[in-house]
This record gives sequence, C-alpha cells and structure tokens, in this order.
Amino acid sequence: MNAEIITIGDEILLGQIIDTNSAWIAQEFAKIQIAVTKITSISDEKAAIQHHLGLADSNVVIVTGGLGPTKDDKTKESIAEFFGTELVRNEEVLAHIQNLFIKLGYENMPAANYQQADVLANADILFNDVGTAAGMWVEHQGKIFIFLPGVPFEMMHLVSNKVLPKFSEIRTTTYIYNRYLLTIGLGESHLAEQIADIENALPAHIKLAYLPKIGLLRLRLSASGTDEKILQSDVDAFLERIATRLEKYVVAYEDISIEEAFIQEFSKNNLKFSTAESCTGGGLASRITQYAGSSSIYQGSVVAYSNESKMKLLNVQKATLDNFGAVSEETVLEMAAGARKIFETDYAIATSGIAGPSGGTPEKPVGTVWIAIAGKNSTISKKYNFKNNRTINIERTIANAWLLLWKLYKEEN
Amino acid sequence: MNAEIITIGDEILLGQIIDTNSAWIAQEFAKIQIAVTKITSISDEKAAIQHHLGLADSNVVIVTGGLGPTKDDKTKESIAEFFGTELVRNEEVLAHIQNLFIKLGYENMPAANYQQADVLANADILFNDVGTAAGMWVEHQGKIFIFLPGVPFEMMHLVSNKVLPKFSEIRTTTYIYNRYLLTIGLGESHLAEQIADIENALPAHIKLAYLPKIGLLRLRLSASGTDEKILQSDVDAFLERIATRLEKYVVAYEDISIEEAFIQEFSKNNLKFSTAESCTGGGLASRITQYAGSSSIYQGSVVAYSNESKMKLLNVQKATLDNFGAVSEETVLEMAAGARKIFETDYAIATSGIAGPSGGTPEKPVGTVWIAIAGKNSTISKKYNFKNNRTINIERTIANAWLLLWKLYKEEN
Repeated sequence: MNAEIITIGDEILLGQIIDTNSAWIAQEFAKIQIAVTKITSISDEKAAIQHHLGLADSNVVIVTGGLGPTKDDKTKESIAEFFGTELVRNEEVLAHIQNLFIKLGYENMPAANYQQADVLANADILFNDVGTAAGMWVEHQGKIFIFLPGVPFEMMHLVSNKVLPKFSEIRTTTYIYNRYLLTIGLGESHLAEQIADIENALPAHIKLAYLPKIGLLRLRLSASGTDEKILQSDVDAFLERIATRLEKYVVAYEDISIEEAFIQEFSKNNLKFSTAESCTGGGLASRITQYAGSSSIYQGSVVAYSNESKMKLLNVQKATLDNFGAVSEETVLEMAAGARKIFETDYAIATSGIAGPSGGTPEKPVGTVWIAIAGKNSTISKKYNFKNNRTINIERTIANAWLLLWKLYKEEN
Repeated sequence: MNAEIITIGDEILLGQIIDTNSAWIAQEFAKIQIAVTKITSISDEKAAIQHHLGLADSNVVIVTGGLGPTKDDKTKESIAEFFGTELVRNEEVLAHIQNLFIKLGYENMPAANYQQADVLANADILFNDVGTAAGMWVEHQGKIFIFLPGVPFEMMHLVSNKVLPKFSEIRTTTYIYNRYLLTIGLGESHLAEQIADIENALPAHIKLAYLPKIGLLRLRLSASGTDEKILQSDVDAFLERIATRLEKYVVAYEDISIEEAFIQEFSKNNLKFSTAESCTGGGLASRITQYAGSSSIYQGSVVAYSNESKMKLLNVQKATLDNFGAVSEETVLEMAAGARKIFETDYAIATSGIAGPSGGTPEKPVGTVWIAIAGKNSTISKKYNFKNNRTINIERTIANAWLLLWKLYKEEN
C-alpha cells in the first residue's frame, strides 16, 4: 500500500512557510508500512486542486490545508465538485466550533466560521477536538482520500487519533523494514569508500542511502518484501557488518539526532554538561532542550553576547578580552572553564565567533570561530574559518561543537 | 513566466528531512517575477524522475537533489536518457573537485567523486565553487530545466550566483506585486471580520491571503498583471486601508519576522532586552540571534534549567523556590528582574514551565507555563495552560513571550 501527500496553499508556493507537515506524515505512515511515494504542493485554486486530485495514482491520498475559515480557502467547494457530491452542514461539528469560541471567551462566533461546519456529504468525519476545521475521509473509485487541516498540531492530532486507528483495521501484505546508523566525523564519499565492498554485496531488495546533514551522516538500510522475518534478518546482518567496519564513527544504531545520542550516552554514564554561547546565541541550548530527558544531562547556558556578561557571568578576565579579543582561544577557554564551574558539570562547551554579515576584520574575517570543550581531565580548543553567511556559520559552529564534545567524551570514557 | 520545483530524494519522502530548499527557491524566484506554481517531491528512481520531468508544464523546471557522489543518486543517468543525450566528463569540473579534496588535506580523491564531473552533453554548466556537484541548465522543447545539488548552501550559492543572473537577461511581461502586514494578538477569523468590507471591495486582480503562524498573522495582498505601476498603486491603497483599520495589531508593514520587528523597533528607540529561560531552553535567544543586528538590541540569556543556576546566576531567592516552586509567578518575576539587572537592559523576559512529557503534577500539569516581562516602569506576568506536547508547548511559550514583550513595549513607548 502506498500514499501520496498533496498540500494546498499559496503560502508554501511563495516560500512563506516551509512544509513540515509532509515529513511528519511520511514518518507516521512509514510506521504502519505505508510508503509515501510523492509529495506535491499546489495552489489554493479550484483548477489546480481538481487537476491534482485527478492525477493521484496512489492507494491513499492525503490532502492538507485549505480548510481555514477565511475566503482564501476554496478547497471544500472544489473537492465536492470533484467527487460529484455536495457540502452539508454538520450540526455536531457546528456545536463543537461554537463551543470553542465560548471557551475562548467570545460571545459570538465570527460568521466566517459557520462554513467550517460544512462537510462533504460522502465523507466520514474526522472530528477535530483541538481546532475548528474537521477532517474528512472519503473512499472514491478504490482510493482513500483524507482531508486534513494545515495547522500542524491539529493535523498531527487528527492523524494520530483518527486516521492511523482507521488504518489499523486494514491489513497490509508488503512490509518495509528500515535500520539506521548515525555517524560523525567522516564525509560521505570517504565513508562510502570504506564500505564499498559491503555495499556491492547488497542483494537487490536492500537499498543503502546516505543521508548527510551538516557534520553528520546517517546511513539507512531499507528493504521491502512480503516476508517480514527474512527482511529483518537480512537487513540486521548487513547493518552489523557496516557498523563493525565504521565503529569509531558510529554515534548511534538507530535514527536519532546527535542531541538524543548525547542524552542516551550521558544519562547512562551519569554525566552532565553546560554551555557558554556567544556566536551560537543559545542555539546549542535550544537544540538539546527540545528533547525530553535533556534536563538530566544538561544544566544550562550563559548566552553572553557582550564582554560585560562574559566577565560577570562566566568569570572571563578583563585582561584576556583586552589582550586577545572576544573571538580568541584564550577567551573560549575561559568561557568553557567558567561554565563548567558555575553549572558544576563534567563538560562545558564554549563558542565565540564572528557569525556575520558584519563585524569581520582582516585578521578575523566573518566566519572566524573558536570552540572550546572543557572536560573532566582535559580540554580541546579549535579554530574554524567558515566564510559563509550568518545562518550557515551558526549551523556549522553548532555541528562542530557537538563533534568536539563527542570526541572528548569518547577519549575520556 | 512560471516555474515548478521537483525535489529528488527518498529522504524527503520518508520524512527524514524537511524540504527547506523549495521555500527558499520560491522566494528568490518571486523577486524576479517568476511564480512557483507547483512543488513535487519524488523518489530517486529512474521511472519517477523521467515521469515527472515529462509531466512538467511550466516555463522553468528547477530540479534539486540526486547529484551526490554515492550510489543512491541516479538522477544524472535518468535525465540524460530523458533528454536523449549522454553524460560527458568535464575536465574543468574534475579539476575543481580534485582541488577541493586537496584543500581538505586528502591525498587521493575517492573514486566515487569522479562521476561528479560527468555532465549532460546538452547543458550549460553552473560551476559550483562551494561544493563538488555542478549545476546544469538545459533548454529543451521551449522549457528551461535547471538541475541543482540538494545540499542547501550549495544550492543557494548556485541560484544566487549562477541561475538568477542568467534570468536577468530574459525580459518578462507579467508582473507580480506583493505587500505584507504582520499582525499580533488577534486570531484569523476575528481579524477577517474586522476587514470584511475592505476584503469584499477588492478587485478581481488583487488577492488577500491570511498566513497564520503560532501567535502571529501575516496578511498578504498580491496582484499580477501587465502594468506594474497600476498594480503597485492599487495594492498600496488597499494595504493602507487595512493597516489603518487594524492599527493596534500591526507590528510591521513588510514581510519580516517578529524578531526582525523587534530589531527594527528597539534599534530605532535605542532599547535593549535580555532573557532568563527555563522551559524555552535558549529558544528565545536563538530566535533573536539568528538575525544580523540582534547584537545591538539583545544582550544575552541565562538558560537556567536547575534551581541552583536560577539562584546563582539570576539571584532568585531560595525561599521563593522553596515556597512557590520553580514554575510560579514569584519565580519568573525574580528571574526577569535578575536578568534585567545583570544584563543591564531596558526589558527582560523570563519563562518557566513544564514543557513535558514528564514533570507534571495535579496542581501544575504538563503545559503549565509562567512568563514575566520586566520593563522600564512596569511588569507583566501571565500564566498559561497549553496542554500540548513538548515541542508545541515550547513554541507557544516563545510566541507568547514575544507578544507580551511587544505589549509592554507599546504601553511604555
């Protein structure tokens, strides 16, 4: 069974918002063995909507967006016409929407919201407990069409609580089995060279993919077929061979982020770390704290943009700043030592650099970054010359900070 | 002139990465009056690639991804076959790739990288100064096909430096003109009600779109036509009417983020702020510091996950934490006052809450959040009950922190 996603809305085509819904939907459907084979973003216009519903050639067609209360949303009319059906007002949905407005403290519901209670006459309603736009499930000419609101948390709520349970009743005969390795510190083509013989020995039903992300490389082995047990044992055996070959670069044997790998490893070994951030501006802190469980291994950060705060909060010496400047090995070393002490942690990361676009000098051009890691018995410091734009310089600093922390952790443990 | 984007790669269809390239490309092309009308993500397979190249019905087809050195990238062979041409090794590209590896300190280039110097015989080469995969520009049956690497900063470099300059030679006869309003503090349907009469008066060639983002609402007026001057004066006049009506909710008259609006407003008034973050974990700091210019209005953050760091760094009293807990009005007020003092800023934001999934109690369930803003003459504190998952609770806390800071700033200035 396969699926395709159609997202409706000019805001995606104009680049005003990034489509994060589709990735989330694809992951959830992969878990129930439904592969997404195509994702299409189209305009909120009748002709485009009807044309692409007609082009759909998958078993399941998931449509998001276009169900909002305002006039730029024409989806429902267009799809009713496509299915040769009509819109009918659903009293249960209407009562729910009115109730939501009362809870929010409004006396009257805006007139525009009444039409949100209009649903396709041929649809099963996917009742939306957390918003005003109801989802719809339509079976038409052997395909399942699912219409969902575009607001991410409403869409997620409906998929998890209404859509996936409906699929659990439908049996599948094709299995997909994926395994992952997360590696750090070796580029795509060099890593590929090291495992070329194993890759060449892969049978036709197993695919190897390299999924690079700044500073990291994930490997995915995926197989599909009808015998779930054979798929698993084949893939597991190849993964084991690759992991053994790449041992010193492997961070995790599952599809997790580097931050989650730190949470697992540091929790297991009862280690804690903290950060002192200048050019990363809280980026390290927000990356790690997005994950549940971070509070047991991460103690906090001082985001010290100014020299005063570096001195006051991190105990960087005035003489160090005067003699070497804020972007220097001496300063990041004192920042790391300061954070390690004040947060009482085993490790501390410090970053200081010129992210750009301004602030560069001939000696320290934009992209000059110093990172230091203070550990239990030793310290690493390293200089980088990234030379990119602000966003990428910050991203690369974050990626290299994790790499250096991982390195020192591996050396010390 | 219109365009469509095709992104190639199983990693997008599996939900492993989010397609951020397309939004960026769409924004850049909108600036040169080329509207993106469709974005399609497809599998890295010959049949899918050739099928979708064949389906393309825009003037310009931008294809990203599939140009990497490893074996999962089959794009080039498939497109050569589609165009009825062949791959030829380009010596200039080869020399460049070899040189990149030497610069990185490698003696030998991996064998896999040789094929990256193979290009379509019918293409203009878009030389990639910042990576190994060259871009290609092919004119075929009246359409322009542009092939770009999927790595974001390589793709961006090629679009900015190679692709857009080529288009500047091609004249266009249809103009698109967009104007934006960024509003805060009023929901989509209530805002729509307030401007319903203006919306109804819009002529057919001007479209109004509501682009909601957690806590914010952007309005876009867009028009297309052949007379650029008339488009501009029509849209400007309607924007003015809407802005006057919505005055107290308007944050900016252009398409910027709330963080950029703070940078503009605070810079103009020579104001500074700082943050003390518990549940947002550096999220406020990293949001504001992603923008150039933030260093003149933002002084830093203390990310204080533990009670010890709240006391040591922010001067929160032990008695406050003992009597009221870390998630309390009393604690966030002291955190905000502490940050304002230590960073010597006009304003300070403090957040403390239970982001989840664990840590909730019957009195303070997951989603309970306190935010305080310390200002020049006054203070705001507010409690929230978000009840969502960790990611959304953090997002909503950040959005509401900006809203409260904006409110206090407007009251005081």
